Amino acid sequence: MEPRRALKYSRIRRSKFLSELERFLRFPSVSSEPEHAGDVQKCAHWLARHLKDVGLDQVRLVPTRGHPIVYAMSRQKPTRPTVLIYGHYDVLPGNPLREWHTPPFTPTLKGDNLYARGASDDKGQLFAHIKAIESYLKTTGSLPVNVKCIFEGEEEIGSPHLNSFIARNKRALRADTAVISDTRMLAPDRPAISYAQRGGLRAELVVTGPPQDLHSGNFGGAVHNPLQALCEMIARLHDANGRVAIPGFYDSVRQWSEKERAFMARTGPSNEQILRDARVEQSWGEPGFTLYERTTIRPALTLSGIAGGHYAQGSKSIIPARAVAKLSFRLVPNQDPQKIAQLFRHHIERITPPAVRCSVRTFAGIKPALVNRNHPAVRAAVFAYRKGFGATPVFLRSGGSIPVVTSLQEMLGIPVVLMGFGLPDDHIHAPNERLYLPNFYNAIKTSVWYLALAAKLVAAGGIRDRASDRGVREHQ
Amino acid sequence: MEPRRALKYSRIRRSKFLSELERFLRFPSVSSEPEHAGDVQKCAHWLARHLKDVGLDQVRLVPTRGHPIVYAMSRQKPTRPTVLIYGHYDVLPGNPLREWHTPPFTPTLKGDNLYARGASDDKGQLFAHIKAIESYLKTTGSLPVNVKCIFEGEEEIGSPHLNSFIARNKRALRADTAVISDTRMLAPDRPAISYAQRGGLRAELVVTGPPQDLHSGNFGGAVHNPLQALCEMIARLHDANGRVAIPGFYDSVRQWSEKERAFMARTGPSNEQILRDARVEQSWGEPGFTLYERTTIRPALTLSGIAGGHYAQGSKSIIPARAVAKLSFRLVPNQDPQKIAQLFRHHIERITPPAVRCSVRTFAGIKPALVNRNHPAVRAAVFAYRKGFGATPVFLRSGGSIPVVTSLQEMLGIPVVLMGFGLPDDHIHAPNERLYLPNFYNAIKTSVWYLALAAKLVAAGGIRDRASDRGVREHQ
Repeated sequence: MEPRRALKYSRIRRSKFLSELERFLRFPSVSSEPEHAGDVQKCAHWLARHLKDVGLDQVRLVPTRGHPIVYAMSRQKPTRPTVLIYGHYDVLPGNPLREWHTPPFTPTLKGDNLYARGASDDKGQLFAHIKAIESYLKTTGSLPVNVKCIFEGEEEIGSPHLNSFIARNKRALRADTAVISDTRMLAPDRPAISYAQRGGLRAELVVTGPPQDLHSGNFGGAVHNPLQALCEMIARLHDANGRVAIPGFYDSVRQWSEKERAFMARTGPSNEQILRDARVEQSWGEPGFTLYERTTIRPALTLSGIAGGHYAQGSKSIIPARAVAKLSFRLVPNQDPQKIAQLFRHHIERITPPAVRCSVRTFAGIKPALVNRNHPAVRAAVFAYRKGFGATPVFLRSGGSIPVVTSLQEMLGIPVVLMGFGLPDDHIHAPNERLYLPNFYNAIKTSVWYLALAAKLVAAGGIRDRASDRGVREHQ
Repeated sequence: MEPRRALKYSRIRRSKFLSELERFLRFPSVSSEPEHAGDVQKCAHWLARHLKDVGLDQVRLVPTRGHPIVYAMSRQKPTRPTVLIYGHYDVLPGNPLREWHTPPFTPTLKGDNLYARGASDDKGQLFAHIKAIESYLKTTGSLPVNVKCIFEGEEEIGSPHLNSFIARNKRALRADTAVISDTRMLAPDRPAISYAQRGGLRAELVVTGPPQDLHSGNFGGAVHNPLQALCEMIARLHDANGRVAIPGFYDSVRQWSEKERAFMARTGPSNEQILRDARVEQSWGEPGFTLYERTTIRPALTLSGIAGGHYAQGSKSIIPARAVAKLSFRLVPNQDPQKIAQLFRHHIERITPPAVRCSVRTFAGIKPALVNRNHPAVRAAVFAYRKGFGATPVFLRSGGSIPVVTSLQEMLGIPVVLMGFGLPDDHIHAPNERLYLPNFYNAIKTSVWYLALAAKLVAAGGIRDRASDRGVREHQ
């Protein structure tokens, strides 16, 4: 099936696609904030309606105990292979609001960039696939492959209800491969396929002392300060070199061959590039590894927030009664999130000063994941990128965690192709998130080609090679 | 002049006094929050009007670049001594609101306690003096001494405009002694006179790294985290024993004689009492000193708040771009706030990790202060307490800082009598602040007696003994 007509359709409908995306971005579908639950719901309804409008066949809003999953599929033809497309329509909060140049939920076009929370992560990326599907259905009336779409509303809060949805619907979700666009390229002319991602584990520490805030004049110097104690404990989570100081933390970290490290050095971003992307002058972290290695094959522990005492404007002379820290681990093969949670708890017990109390909460962990770079479904993506962006993609490891990758690989037994369309300076998870529009349009073209090429590869028998699906986590 | 009629008036007007105090407490006169500036203003107007109503002669609302000073005086008679009464009508914020059992600005009576922000610190205490003045003026028509009142609206934000007011009005404020009720007793039957207070210095640290929040997946492990760096720096402000670790910090701390320490041990609260007041089980701090000593004759450094990263509900996987800490020093003779600010800055420079930047702000410092326990004006307070509370007051050191004490002593050259009516469990600077009403009524009685006794002491020539005023800061 030639994608010629679909490609032409997608080329001449760009301004329509853009204004639809803007509509999509206007929903403050912030999954982490209860006051936005209604907005998440509205966004899901809009998305479901939109999937019907583009011509998908079965569209369902699947309720969960949290935010709904939007599910859709094309009319299935048994002779054709099936591609599962995953994306998430939820976004992070738009704070700190004062650092946004334009309101986070008022999409604003400046030059070639569209600014809005979710523009790159992940509404813009998932929308590219929807527009590719539309381009087929509105022209040839059918798709070269069977398509099943899962658009989640809880990715940014750790996908608490996705696994049970997949487990309950294993038969219905049966597919030959999955594609996810929630990662990044190196530059607009350097597409990338992520073949590895770090796992994750979130944790929260609550340190408590006196039952209520004390006047620091009356008690300062005689009663321990939970906030100070928390800082002192946090200072003991890393050593002076930037290595995580939790005993046993590195024990099961996989050592990579010189060959793989050389491959990474050749394909991955340089130290200078990473510092430029972060817009900092000086690096930090574990000695003996490049910055690319530190953010992909080495684990990390990040302090993402602290709240304690009086932090608003003005001052308040208190010893605060409690202090809270939010932490997030990035894990690598073969670290096990549960084991790491245990080591962390033991370490915290050991370093809690006697004059305060500390409670530890850890949340659902995500295992690190790997995809075989030589799988036919991955090769189809390589060809599609060449068509869409005019360049051969590099193979990258990702430092972040997309929980669904592990879930899809383990529960459905299919390879997951991480075909990213984001850019390093899209400011995802930060103020002024944006989408580079040429990437958006090339992403649509790439998706059109991917659907066509996936069908061809299957015809050659390649995609059914289940042997190469299994054991992807053992790869290298 | 016998205070009999004034005492009787004050006894039978208790319910009127209480409802007036409730009116006063209803103003959310929060000096630190710009959105409450109007409430501070309204509170000042109400107070000025009230002072006129009780019969004071010259009442003025003195504007400043911040919140106004309410000034009032009685008709001055040259043959009589003059007592300056200082208090503050501003309060701390009523947060965290969820920890208050009743709204902070809805005064609520439960048993013998009146709950409201400012009930004890300082509206309730200053109001006792106003009611004593009223009790004279509404009965005998005049006061046994000349009275001048300064009621400030910026005490809780460090009195930024008070010193210039005093400097500009030295002649008008001329007095023989000052009395301030903004400290505490040990228990309802154990009145106390504070003869020493610690000084103070506030500071703010701002640590910055990347120009904006970074995704912790993409950069975690390769870019330093300003919030983590801040914690690590804070961990280096105290040693493992709880001593402040800033080089030179203790160099000018005065060593007290065994005699003075024995006096303190006899008169001051025990370790057990201080822990009970703080409602904690375990003490903390500098070895070799009792808790009373640690909070009065030893300096302290308190971390009063941190803000950094995402600390609201939910999670956000970021490396925050910046982190802020608010700190407050408590200083003792002969530490100089400016010198301490300098030592602090140098230490921070030394311990700032190279991959982040740190800026330090220090705010106006307050020198520690001492009052001669044998001054006639202090003796008058001893007698007044005996009459008002039926008990001889103990002499206490205070751990907090009342900036005006140093200002009045140094700029007007008069002794300052700290006649406290608060209780240790009044929850000042904390949720559920309260005033124990029997203390309020006894405070009015004590003030009535104080004004009478101050007049008598002057008749004996005692209060004019300027030689004993000078050098109070060299005492002991």
